[in-house]
This record gives sequence, C-alpha cells and structure tokens, in this order.
Amino acid sequence: MNESRIERVLQNMQKAGLEQIVVTSTSSVYYLTGLWVEPLERMLALYLNTHGDRVLFGNYLFGLPEQQGIRLMQHSDSDNPVRDLAEVIRPGKLGIDKMWLSKFLIGLIQLRPDVTPVIGSAPVDDARMLKDAQEIEAMRYSSRINDQAVEAAIASIHEGARENELAAQVEEFYRAHGADHSSEGQLVCFGANGADPHHAPDDTVLREGDSVTFDIFIPFRRYWCDMTRTVFFKTVSDEQRRVYETVKNANLSAIASVRPGLPLRDFDRAARKVIEDAGYGPYFTHRLGHGAGLDCHEMPDVSSASDVIAKPGMVFSIEPGVYLPGKFGVRVEDLVLVTEDGCEVLNKASKDLRIV
Amino acid sequence: MNESRIERVLQNMQKAGLEQIVVTSTSSVYYLTGLWVEPLERMLALYLNTHGDRVLFGNYLFGLPEQQGIRLMQHSDSDNPVRDLAEVIRPGKLGIDKMWLSKFLIGLIQLRPDVTPVIGSAPVDDARMLKDAQEIEAMRYSSRINDQAVEAAIASIHEGARENELAAQVEEFYRAHGADHSSEGQLVCFGANGADPHHAPDDTVLREGDSVTFDIFIPFRRYWCDMTRTVFFKTVSDEQRRVYETVKNANLSAIASVRPGLPLRDFDRAARKVIEDAGYGPYFTHRLGHGAGLDCHEMPDVSSASDVIAKPGMVFSIEPGVYLPGKFGVRVEDLVLVTEDGCEVLNKASKDLRIV
Repeated sequence: MNESRIERVLQNMQKAGLEQIVVTSTSSVYYLTGLWVEPLERMLALYLNTHGDRVLFGNYLFGLPEQQGIRLMQHSDSDNPVRDLAEVIRPGKLGIDKMWLSKFLIGLIQLRPDVTPVIGSAPVDDARMLKDAQEIEAMRYSSRINDQAVEAAIASIHEGARENELAAQVEEFYRAHGADHSSEGQLVCFGANGADPHHAPDDTVLREGDSVTFDIFIPFRRYWCDMTRTVFFKTVSDEQRRVYETVKNANLSAIASVRPGLPLRDFDRAARKVIEDAGYGPYFTHRLGHGAGLDCHEMPDVSSASDVIAKPGMVFSIEPGVYLPGKFGVRVEDLVLVTEDGCEVLNKASKDLRIV
Repeated sequence: MNESRIERVLQNMQKAGLEQIVVTSTSSVYYLTGLWVEPLERMLALYLNTHGDRVLFGNYLFGLPEQQGIRLMQHSDSDNPVRDLAEVIRPGKLGIDKMWLSKFLIGLIQLRPDVTPVIGSAPVDDARMLKDAQEIEAMRYSSRINDQAVEAAIASIHEGARENELAAQVEEFYRAHGADHSSEGQLVCFGANGADPHHAPDDTVLREGDSVTFDIFIPFRRYWCDMTRTVFFKTVSDEQRRVYETVKNANLSAIASVRPGLPLRDFDRAARKVIEDAGYGPYFTHRLGHGAGLDCHEMPDVSSASDVIAKPGMVFSIEPGVYLPGKFGVRVEDLVLVTEDGCEVLNKASKDLRIV
C-alpha cells in the first residue's frame, strides 16, 4: 500500500462527502497498492472507507500477496465475489469506479438495496491527476523515447510505403526499447485517411503530396507517452501548408496559455480560436486533449466543457487537429506537465513543417 | 443489421421476459450490426425493444454509417449521450450489457429512477453461443493457423531461449499470418513459472528439464483461436511424465464426454475426475474452459457451476491443468465445437508427450 496516496484519496473522499468507495480499475488499484492485475471478466476491487476499512477482493488466479494494513478476500471462479463485497459495505452512498463492469454493480444493487451507487472515481482520479516526483520522472522518460520513436518513424517514410508497414515499424521500435507490452493500434494515416482522426492503418500506399500523420503511444514502466506529428511526402500544397501552420499555431497557442489556476477549457479555447480565426473551426471535431499517466486516457478532460482548474503536476495532451474530408488531416500533439508558472512540454520533436 | 440474428435476440428477450435491452460490447454490437467500434471511454450502445425500436448511440468520432431499420443518435465529446438514451428507454425493467461501464449505468439510473436495471446480456450471449455456418468456418480457419503457430513455437525452442523471446516469435507468426491486430500477452512459461496459470513471460532462461507451456490466442477475421500445449526441454522426470499423462487424459476424457443435451458441468467433472483420481485434484485450480468466438472469453462458462446445456454450434475450450508450486505446470487446451452427436476438436496439433 502506498500510504501517502491512500491518505490523499481519503481526504478527497471526505471533501466529496463520500464515506466509502470501490476502486476497481487496474491502474487505480496499482496506484494505491503497487499490484498490477488485469482482471478481464473477473472481479478485482479495493474497498476503502473513511473509518479505516481496506479490503482487497480478487480471484485466486491473480496471486495477490498479503499486504500490511489491508484485508485480502479471495475467491475462485465458482464463487460469487459480489456477495463478499456486499457483506463488507455499509448502507447509504457508495462511490463506484466509473469503469466497473455493470454485471458486478447490478449484482451489488440487488444484494444491497440499501446502498445507493454514485460515480465514485473522483477521489482516486483527483489524486492521480497530480503526479508525484516519481511519476513525473517516469513520464519524462516515456516521452523521451517517444520523441525518438517519431523521428525513426518519419525517417522510415519511403516511396511505396504502406500505412500498416510503418505502424509495424513503430511497434517494433517500442518493443526494442522496452515498452511494457506489445503495442497495438498505432495510428499512421496517409492523405484522405488522415481526415478520420481514428483511421486504423491499412494497406494504403503512400503517394506524393500526401500528409502523413503518426499518432503513437505506449507505456514504459507503466506510464504512457502519446504524441502526434504530421509531415508531408515530397510536396506540400498551399492549402496543406495553411492548415499545417494553423494547427501548429493552435498547439503553440494552447501551450502558451497553460498555467496553474486557469480552467482547462481556457486551453481548449486558445487552440480553437486560432483554428476558428483561420476559418477551419468546423473541422476541429474533437476536444483539445486528455490526461495521461498510468492510463493513456485519464483525467483531466481538456475540452470546452472542462472546469477543472490546472494545477502543478497535471499531465495532459494538447492535440488540436483539422480534418478535411476526402482531402487530408493534420494533428500536432504533445504531452505537457503543468508547472508552477506555466508548463513543461514533455515532447521535444520538432514541429516545423517537414517535407520528406 | 443482421436481421436473422436480431430476430433470434428478440425471441430470447421475449422468453426471458425482457422488453428492452442495451447492447454495448464491441463484439455484440458487431454481431448484430456488422460495425466494429472500440469505444474506449466513450459511449456505444444499441437499444432494442420488443416493440420494434432500434437505436444506435455513438460518438461522431466512430463514423457510424446510416443503416436501414435503425435510428442513429450521434453525440460529440461535449454532449452527454446518457441523456439521449434516457429519452428513448421505457419505464420498468431494462436489460444492461454486463460489460457496460458503471459511469453510464449510474448516470442512467439517476436520470431515470423509474427504470430498474438488470443484467441483460443473455439474449445476445445466448444467440452468440450458437455459431452459425459462417462463424464456424471462421473459427476453423483461426484454429488451423493456431495449430501451425504452436508447431512453429515448439520448433523455436532452443538452448538459452528466454520466455519473452519465444512469446515475441509467436506474436511475429501471428502478424505474418494476418491476425486482426498485434497480439499481446501470449503465455510462455518455463518450469516453475508454469505453476502460475497466468504467469506473464519474462526473461527467464530455459533450462534442461523445464516444462514449456505455450498458451496462445489471437483473432483472425474477428474470430479467436486459443490453445495450449506443454512440452519438456531435453529431459522429463517421472513426476512430470505422470502429471503430463494425467492432464492429457483429463483433456481427452472431457472431449469424449461432450455431447448435446448434457450440462457443461459434466465435462468439467469428466476432466476433474481424472485429475482427482491421480491425486492432483487440489492442483487443478480453475474451471475447465470458456466459450470463444468474437471474444476470447465469452459464454458459455464451462465450470463445475455451469448448468448450461450443450447444443450443436457451441464452441468452448477444454483446458485442464495441474500446477505444482515451485516445480512446474502442465496445461493442455483445445477449442471444441459441439456437433449433433459429440464434438469436433478444432485443434489438431499433437498432444503426445514431447521432449524437444
């Protein structure tokens, strides 16, 4: 158990008026216990309340060790672990991890109608948003490798390249540099495919004049990197150049706007304003960014709806994009760390327009 | 929309007394609509009721196409999609997909206190359990490649091999043979590591006399294969031989017991009896198997608690194992397809004891 993190979570619970919570996501349980368990369809749950109870529920297959200060309740595949949990929780409001599977929650509601479930991830998410020194070092390390990965990816662009071929090379780079697991779903998009922000690489062949977008991400030592660069193959049109500079300036403008004490929506606004002023507002179809850490996507949300206040220690992406259907797309993404007086950009790879 | 599958689901709903359900898992939505969407933290939901309403909810980023016979309600990152769903559902019982994220379910309960959520995956799961001809062909295809993969893996065993090196070779084999995505988490266990059924490959080096367990699985054309073979490096002890033959016989005995009309727990019993009779009962620590198809683990559960009745078209794993802590482990796994009068074993790789 990481006592200082638990302590922070308990304080957040008290502030939120939550007496008890159930923590179930792999990354949050790891954050608090140091145990990394991917339960798949099985149940993993850490119950905490403000009276000092701490109970970890898990399948015997997880091989959970006994730890000081925590009660371990294990179950086998033929037991009903929700029943164990139902015996431990108190009546009234119960905070539930937002990603918990409905099958467990519905089972719990049926066994304990005196319990009112509410979304209860905030106490842990709020703690996780503020990275401690060890976490910051891990995120710098991870992004440093990603800078090298994107340079290697750009260097591998060649006549006749296919999207999935370049994606496989990124994956190989990650593997060779000690990523936590095989990567999957690296985004490499040529030309019109880049107009779909989530286009999965296929056997599209690179053609002169294509935009090439790499959106690449993986965890090293449990902490994720995540960045995007867009370059152009052989030639660049006036429109591509205009869009590229607009998106780059939106990225830079958002970065320049980051400082503690401001709501995150201000950063989204800073980027969106640059894109709107250039006339591409309708083509920036997603939020500015997302928190990153033990998960690739975690709190805080960096969107026009986010009233979270920036604080030192937060790490999130700044990833404006413009997507012109049938033509091409441009996105430029960095991870940034909020500091005392602004932010540190964790990615160092150049954002100058590149024709390769 | 696959009308015949929808029809089967609606019949299952009627039998179960469920007027309305929310289908949310990637594979179940694909099964019914042909659309493969991995929503991550975003909302994907297919609402069906017995009055003929069919509404698909998804983020604009998913790029969902209009389809005949289904209403499409899209949302952006700054909308609350649960509100859209809350406006469409009827009062009373609502079947919820078992894997739906609690954040959506809790939001729905708060907006619609007149709705009672129940676990509602069964109508789709029951349909999916019975593979149609097209699915059976896909599963045969997938397992045929896996037979080759395990032979290649066994052939790659050599002096000084590391677990993660062999796992990477399996992953490379899958990639080269057109797997749907990069693989991850292939299990390769040497010696005492094999006594943990979920041991993740690390840089353990192979030693003479080690058991070597390959548990390998991946989807091809959306359908998963999943098999396990255990071999021995250079020498085999009397105890290893005894355990191996026991586990192999448990696998064969379970396979011989499979026929339509019997509860699946009977097959678990058949395997467990062989292992208990040999004195290793306490070391077979998990269920016999799990369904496989569009998901690696899906219905039916094949455990001592399963009263599901075997029917032609079901596909599940038969994977008894014996795990001797600190020593070694043996598991032998095949996928089987229930037929009119028994079962077809989808894996053909030899189960004879092999010393390599």
